[in-house]
Amino acid sequence: MKKLLGILACTPLYIYAQQSADSTMIKKIADEILVHGTAYDLLHQLTKQIGGRLAGSPQFAKAVQWGKKTMQEAGADTVWLQQCMVPHWVRGGTDKVSIVAVNKQKQNKSLDATALGNSLGGPISGVTAEVLAVKDFAELEQKKDQVKGKIVYYDYAFNPTYIVPMQAYAESGVYRHSGPSRAAQYGAVAVLIRSLTESTDNNPHTGSMAYNDSFPKIPAAALGLKDADYLYQLASKRTVTVNIQTHGKQLPDTIGHNVIAELKGSEFPNEYITIGGHLDSWDVNEGAHDDGAGVVHTIEILRTLKALGYQPKHTIRFVLFANEENGLRGGKKYGEEAKARNENHIFALESDNGGFTPRGFSLALNSTQLQKVQGWLPLLKPYGCESLDYGGGGADVGPLYSLLHTPVGELKPDNQRYFDLHHARNDVFENVNKRELLLGAVNMTALIYLIDQHGL
Amino acid sequence: MKKLLGILACTPLYIYAQQSADSTMIKKIADEILVHGTAYDLLHQLTKQIGGRLAGSPQFAKAVQWGKKTMQEAGADTVWLQQCMVPHWVRGGTDKVSIVAVNKQKQNKSLDATALGNSLGGPISGVTAEVLAVKDFAELEQKKDQVKGKIVYYDYAFNPTYIVPMQAYAESGVYRHSGPSRAAQYGAVAVLIRSLTESTDNNPHTGSMAYNDSFPKIPAAALGLKDADYLYQLASKRTVTVNIQTHGKQLPDTIGHNVIAELKGSEFPNEYITIGGHLDSWDVNEGAHDDGAGVVHTIEILRTLKALGYQPKHTIRFVLFANEENGLRGGKKYGEEAKARNENHIFALESDNGGFTPRGFSLALNSTQLQKVQGWLPLLKPYGCESLDYGGGGADVGPLYSLLHTPVGELKPDNQRYFDLHHARNDVFENVNKRELLLGAVNMTALIYLIDQHGL
Repeated sequence: MKKLLGILACTPLYIYAQQSADSTMIKKIADEILVHGTAYDLLHQLTKQIGGRLAGSPQFAKAVQWGKKTMQEAGADTVWLQQCMVPHWVRGGTDKVSIVAVNKQKQNKSLDATALGNSLGGPISGVTAEVLAVKDFAELEQKKDQVKGKIVYYDYAFNPTYIVPMQAYAESGVYRHSGPSRAAQYGAVAVLIRSLTESTDNNPHTGSMAYNDSFPKIPAAALGLKDADYLYQLASKRTVTVNIQTHGKQLPDTIGHNVIAELKGSEFPNEYITIGGHLDSWDVNEGAHDDGAGVVHTIEILRTLKALGYQPKHTIRFVLFANEENGLRGGKKYGEEAKARNENHIFALESDNGGFTPRGFSLALNSTQLQKVQGWLPLLKPYGCESLDYGGGGADVGPLYSLLHTPVGELKPDNQRYFDLHHARNDVFENVNKRELLLGAVNMTALIYLIDQHGL
Repeated sequence: MKKLLGILACTPLYIYAQQSADSTMIKKIADEILVHGTAYDLLHQLTKQIGGRLAGSPQFAKAVQWGKKTMQEAGADTVWLQQCMVPHWVRGGTDKVSIVAVNKQKQNKSLDATALGNSLGGPISGVTAEVLAVKDFAELEQKKDQVKGKIVYYDYAFNPTYIVPMQAYAESGVYRHSGPSRAAQYGAVAVLIRSLTESTDNNPHTGSMAYNDSFPKIPAAALGLKDADYLYQLASKRTVTVNIQTHGKQLPDTIGHNVIAELKGSEFPNEYITIGGHLDSWDVNEGAHDDGAGVVHTIEILRTLKALGYQPKHTIRFVLFANEENGLRGGKKYGEEAKARNENHIFALESDNGGFTPRGFSLALNSTQLQKVQGWLPLLKPYGCESLDYGGGGADVGPLYSLLHTPVGELKPDNQRYFDLHHARNDVFENVNKRELLLGAVNMTALIYLIDQHGL
């Protein structure tokens, strides 16, 4: 009998029946989310009632309580907080960057700027010095003898010919991350960068930087693109003196929390599937796309499975991570704890690319697993998923991948608008579209359902 | 020798070399548009200097002159105006819809409403009557004996479970188009509809309706969704009296123009490829996505081919159509003239689905042609095109298809945000993203290049 079932299980008829059952279930998932989805309303709560929520801030603590309550209400079997220490950087005041002289003639032109995350402020009166504008590190090296006592401005621009802006971000990111110390090495007193964006507005974009402990920890800020263009053109022809007032402080690490909800598996309770987004955001905005979207995607999947009365075979964990932006401490803690407990994690999925129309998933799977998942593409295509490609998972599921070799993946929404608002003041609720957001949850829930049903 | 070339032309090596040349050319097209594209700036001119431009309006006449000048500057061999008569509907004043009584008790609650295009206004003081709220035509038929003297409100909603909102629009559209006369048939004195949208705001959406000459031509307007919900719920329980003041007038047909630019073909000057969008828009907004995007896509393709020094084999026509919104007279005129001159049109491509991230093309081709075009998918995929599917072309190239059997197609951008602003006051420049807009032009130019090179 067992043998017969085995043969039956391999026949096209069986496959057809299974696909049809999967297709029916995924249609139910989509209808549930598109008609009754609460992700958009939850995002409104998170962005408008709590707002920006940098790790270590009182707003982040408020977001943790909100996340716990919300996942309890969404029907989790259990919800708990997983404590971890997080960096505690504070902006410390209002950032001000001004051109104060051109060719030694006094001026007073304010530039729209934001201190980089983790950067330290200078004296109250700011740092005042001449600007050395360079296109890139190569030019910095050529001009290293001119750097001492100057404010270095990097004019490294997003490459508009990359079709996926994430590629431009990956390329330019090193100027934000390492630019300050590379200039400090030659005696620069502060650094300005061109914001990591190709937006048509003048909003500056913050984001994480890291000092090299071997060199002075100088102030560092990003300029909006219009002011960046202005400064570069001016400084290419004239001697421009700028005053930079930033006030960043790195306080001692403080207590943060991952918020974890669980639906117990009926067949394989000790095999885990994790879904998550990060609860923290920068302080300059509401963190609506980054990563409010991932947070409410995660909760929406939980709500939907419960609303449909779905009994998962594997235990599913819904995780709101504590500290993606400036430390990744939440993701690390989750991975380390999973390893310490010797948990068997079969898959982890992240949403941290914004709440835009979903176009597919990037998956760090082996070739057998990938082939299996790609076989599901016809089931996901009606919901806008066009590709299931090999690629990285997200940052917060990275530690599961590196420590436990867990197969991981991330949602890939359309990427064109992301860097217009990423880490800038316009990453607000109003710039999230309800249907685009919900469709992300539809595709994620469908993929999780398929993996729970059929394994990897 | 000829035979040898014939054999060579069929070898995989030749195909590989050709694909490589095509791929190189398409990369040049993409780089040119993404680095030097003027579509976004031109859209700013069209939306901010001219604004809404309903056929027959002074703004439309201004847009015609702008289009002519702009296409001359973009490098067309020739630009001319093709005259056609267009409907001349005017809104005639500010639309006002208010609840004036509930259960005969006086009230004064204003509802956000817009008269439907082509609808006629009532008396200056408006039409005041009790509301009969129905879900759909079936309920109207059931209640036809109660219609006389009433204002009929149709609460037919977009179906959120359709993944492509265009499908919901196609389904609901009949309430805007035919709802007024179907109610007038039973003695209704005016009609209100739920706007054809699923947006989260309260903006009302206008659009074309058509009276059936057999029945009275009663006033008709669309409500924003929040007010639509409010009215429906109230009218389901109470006797609600509403006053509708609209002022629409249908003036005699007037002169309009298609603006046509041409690049002469070097090998097949008498074989035409047409690219177009419509220059007219509704009067309530700037017509940024509908169809400013199609207009600037069209001009961008012209500019790009000239900037790259591309000599088309076929004659390419760039057409800004005169009157898509409330008559299609521009498209009809262009098709009729092409037929009258016995022109040989090998393909026509339209952009009238907004300036969002492109996801593919819909193509009304025969199976041999479709197979050929689908063979090019790998060349277009790097630029975001995921499908080249059989389907309709746009409205303005429709007459070429029906009169001359011209193969036609249309750009299919991501559709999720379109009906949030379609025919509503928020279809403005600020809601268009530069990269999304430019990528549409990239994909269109690439497809036109391939068809020009290889035929259909």
